[in-house]
Amino acid sequence: MRDRTRDGFWNRAEAYGLSHFPRFWRVVMAIPPWRRFCNKCTISRAAERAPSRPYPFSTLEDYTSWRSLTDRTWFSRHLPRKDLSSLPSLKSKSMEALFKVRGECPVLSEDSTVLFMSFAQWFADGFLLTAEDRRKTFTSHQIDLSPVYGLCRSETNALRVKSEARGRKGRLKTETINGEFYAPRLFDETKLVLEDLANPDFDERRAFKAEFASLRRKLTSFSRNRQRLITELGPKPASERAAELAKTTFAFGGERANITPFTAALNTLFLREHNRLAGMLEAANEGWDDERVFQTARNINIVLLIKIVVEEYINHISPYHFQLSADPSVSWRADWNRPNWIPLEFNLLYRWHSMTPDRFKIGNQTVNVKGTLQDNSYLTKRGLAETLVSASHQQSWRLGLFNTADDLLPVELFGIEQSRENHIGSYNDYREAFKYPRVTRFEQITDDQEKIDALRSFYGDVDNIEFIVGLFAEDIAPRAALPPLTGRMVAFDAFSHAFTNPLLSEQVFNERTFSKEGMETIHATHTLEDILNRNLAGAPVAISMTYRQPPAVTV
Amino acid sequence: MRDRTRDGFWNRAEAYGLSHFPRFWRVVMAIPPWRRFCNKCTISRAAERAPSRPYPFSTLEDYTSWRSLTDRTWFSRHLPRKDLSSLPSLKSKSMEALFKVRGECPVLSEDSTVLFMSFAQWFADGFLLTAEDRRKTFTSHQIDLSPVYGLCRSETNALRVKSEARGRKGRLKTETINGEFYAPRLFDETKLVLEDLANPDFDERRAFKAEFASLRRKLTSFSRNRQRLITELGPKPASERAAELAKTTFAFGGERANITPFTAALNTLFLREHNRLAGMLEAANEGWDDERVFQTARNINIVLLIKIVVEEYINHISPYHFQLSADPSVSWRADWNRPNWIPLEFNLLYRWHSMTPDRFKIGNQTVNVKGTLQDNSYLTKRGLAETLVSASHQQSWRLGLFNTADDLLPVELFGIEQSRENHIGSYNDYREAFKYPRVTRFEQITDDQEKIDALRSFYGDVDNIEFIVGLFAEDIAPRAALPPLTGRMVAFDAFSHAFTNPLLSEQVFNERTFSKEGMETIHATHTLEDILNRNLAGAPVAISMTYRQPPAVTV
Repeated sequence: MRDRTRDGFWNRAEAYGLSHFPRFWRVVMAIPPWRRFCNKCTISRAAERAPSRPYPFSTLEDYTSWRSLTDRTWFSRHLPRKDLSSLPSLKSKSMEALFKVRGECPVLSEDSTVLFMSFAQWFADGFLLTAEDRRKTFTSHQIDLSPVYGLCRSETNALRVKSEARGRKGRLKTETINGEFYAPRLFDETKLVLEDLANPDFDERRAFKAEFASLRRKLTSFSRNRQRLITELGPKPASERAAELAKTTFAFGGERANITPFTAALNTLFLREHNRLAGMLEAANEGWDDERVFQTARNINIVLLIKIVVEEYINHISPYHFQLSADPSVSWRADWNRPNWIPLEFNLLYRWHSMTPDRFKIGNQTVNVKGTLQDNSYLTKRGLAETLVSASHQQSWRLGLFNTADDLLPVELFGIEQSRENHIGSYNDYREAFKYPRVTRFEQITDDQEKIDALRSFYGDVDNIEFIVGLFAEDIAPRAALPPLTGRMVAFDAFSHAFTNPLLSEQVFNERTFSKEGMETIHATHTLEDILNRNLAGAPVAISMTYRQPPAVTV
Repeated sequence: MRDRTRDGFWNRAEAYGLSHFPRFWRVVMAIPPWRRFCNKCTISRAAERAPSRPYPFSTLEDYTSWRSLTDRTWFSRHLPRKDLSSLPSLKSKSMEALFKVRGECPVLSEDSTVLFMSFAQWFADGFLLTAEDRRKTFTSHQIDLSPVYGLCRSETNALRVKSEARGRKGRLKTETINGEFYAPRLFDETKLVLEDLANPDFDERRAFKAEFASLRRKLTSFSRNRQRLITELGPKPASERAAELAKTTFAFGGERANITPFTAALNTLFLREHNRLAGMLEAANEGWDDERVFQTARNINIVLLIKIVVEEYINHISPYHFQLSADPSVSWRADWNRPNWIPLEFNLLYRWHSMTPDRFKIGNQTVNVKGTLQDNSYLTKRGLAETLVSASHQQSWRLGLFNTADDLLPVELFGIEQSRENHIGSYNDYREAFKYPRVTRFEQITDDQEKIDALRSFYGDVDNIEFIVGLFAEDIAPRAALPPLTGRMVAFDAFSHAFTNPLLSEQVFNERTFSKEGMETIHATHTLEDILNRNLAGAPVAISMTYRQPPAVTV
């Protein structure tokens, strides 16, 4: 049994109250004014755990300057730089051992599916991607569906149909494969020369279709994957495999959206929803031009994403019985409503690589995860519905130490390296910043003796434990998807960024912005399943971030 | 007597209470907690007159898009676009007649000096400059002293000494003229060829010193002035005059800071203060490098400007007995604390051209204003102190219709044109938006029968009066510097932009950001006079935005 003396009395009391008494919470949720009141209190409490933005520091330098307060190409940071010179070396084998799956078997998540994990990956890539130098970012710091729409206007324009013709207004480009709509493919097949692909220095962006020239900035994952293939298979088979993968790479706004068939499926889902919304808006608003249809569909689509983030994703993460709703008014008068700016710590704590299984089950196939990287043929062969259903039927692994698949160990170390380069403080510093008492014994973090021993032998003192390692060393509470401090920090940053989206603000969240039909769609949407089923020709299917035993017979 | 039935009961009651009972307000100000409380209430009330940002519309288009909510190169706007097709033509002579000085004599301001007017001009150019196309801006939307430091890093770098040598750390470049420090001169005299300057198509930016290449973007006022001279004097004398002016043009961050000797004097004042602060910081902080000294001096200097804006400038504008103070905490919990974004209406209402006299008195000289344009020799010959003292001894003209000097009439019409191009609503629309009842009779705006007749004959209906014209048609209350609606809108935008500056925010406004010495300087500064006197070698002088009869004998 874990030593709970440093959990904090009020933290324990609050967690206990909210994760017990399901009947009481059902009553609260059934009475609209009570529900609204509790929703506002819960969200505000989560968003007030730490001081509000603007923060004095960014990754730029260790003092406050006009530039550090205004140049958003740097990450902000919750805490200032810390001297890390006493930390044990990263190169040490025992560092890797902290992450590596223990024994033969990984621990499966009790209730999270691959759909949950893939959504986290796809969604977070939209607003917290790190730029090459690991101190900067090129995102807008906003939930703006950049994986679908791109990061800037030239990218968005490349992805749009741009036509004033009836039935085409405001649409994103699509391609039909096996009778279903997908994004168009990114590569020009005639430019995919095997000799080029076998050359590690070849820049595959040269093989993009001309219409996607403005997407050229971003193909790091495809590139890394090709380099890996060349190392593992040798140039010839690697170039053949790369050409195969290139044929199913989609022209997405976010290049990392192609990284697995599941992230590609989620991106495809929001792409289809965009075009469905555009059709609805075009039909309802005679005088609207292409631009207005497009922009309004995008506005609605972004709000749908935020609704799913709060009402499906965060509710899945939270161990509480009270189910949150995405009521925009919670932030209208809030003093935590301050300009968005992603902290580097938020970026780092989102490295949930240990949740990724080593094999994906897609339909009746079981595939090594490595083999699915950048390979959307799994998606196009099965179709969108079956792919997302598969993701809902498979448990992810449990987030934590001793549980990362071998292939992902270098990526874990990459995160630690980035954390150290940016002089991120210790686990205990962040406990304190987020209103948990500092721990004084390793036994207060986890009841797993092997983890305790590994942490003690690596760090010596609990005060030395670094940020990410401490986060992932914590035990996960029953009904929760994340360890406590990770959960609290995710909630803080998610709420204080999502609810301050300009589309949810008081003067903007109305029919004038979204149209009557748009508002109705917003109110009627709570889950990915809602969006999927209205974009399917066939019978409705069930998908979920929460794991349930699949029906006895699967297709 | 003006018809006051549409002033609104509460507006009248509030104005009456705050502009009477001086003894009561003196007591309130003498008791610190009362003072703080009233300060917070007054500022918050002013900042809550209209809905808070984010606004749904910008000058981009007439509906809300992700771009209109995020692309800050466009102005935001308080009210949506309005159909203006029924407005009388701009070309009409009676339009100009609304602005032109009536009869022989302009009306002087009762209590505003040329220092006040010049400060308004110099200060506002720092955050609301219009870009060429009249719908966009290239400022940061922040009070960031860009006239001193430039708009971006390359501009700032060109203006800095950048040296780690003792006594030079963190400094801005200077040049000594007649024993006083000024900014360095912008032009390379060897490149000032008379034939070039006589050519209307010649781009004088080619004659900049090489070190100021990054300031090349901006010299529109110098350019316009040269074109005007060529038209008025012919090419030869114009080129000689232009060469003369070029010799006294300073390398400032804001090119419009050179526009009159008074704006140049204010810029010089903050330049000197920067270098004084840098010296202070360098002496107090052994280990600091050039960059840190520079950035910290800039941080302090920006806050000094904000203090002067609130405690000297706004208090001068306000007719109230209660004197406001720049207490940063007023906005820390405020629900009007939302990301800065200058509305076009704020830009338009700041066109106070009618305040500019036709002659400036500088020392014992009286000069036609046109002759002082871009001519800093008036400043360098008299020196900073005498120039600012002169500006404090001369009344500005009173802001309003029938009071603009002939030379500035085209600039007034330019403002109206920009307002119409951007489909800015009517005067009555903005009265309503800022909680004044709509007027129903011309007699409710002013008691000046000639103005009433002119407005009636031009617009026909009070509801047709356009924004700027209505603002400037209003009578000015006793003790006030501005007409009521202008005053209310200036207060709204000034407070909601100044107090949301990141340097005043809760985590940033402290000794860690400004240093101990910096905080002391901030607390000790309330007026331009405070800054001037600590940057003078000689005896202290008195300067003021408020007009007082000058001493019988002037120097």
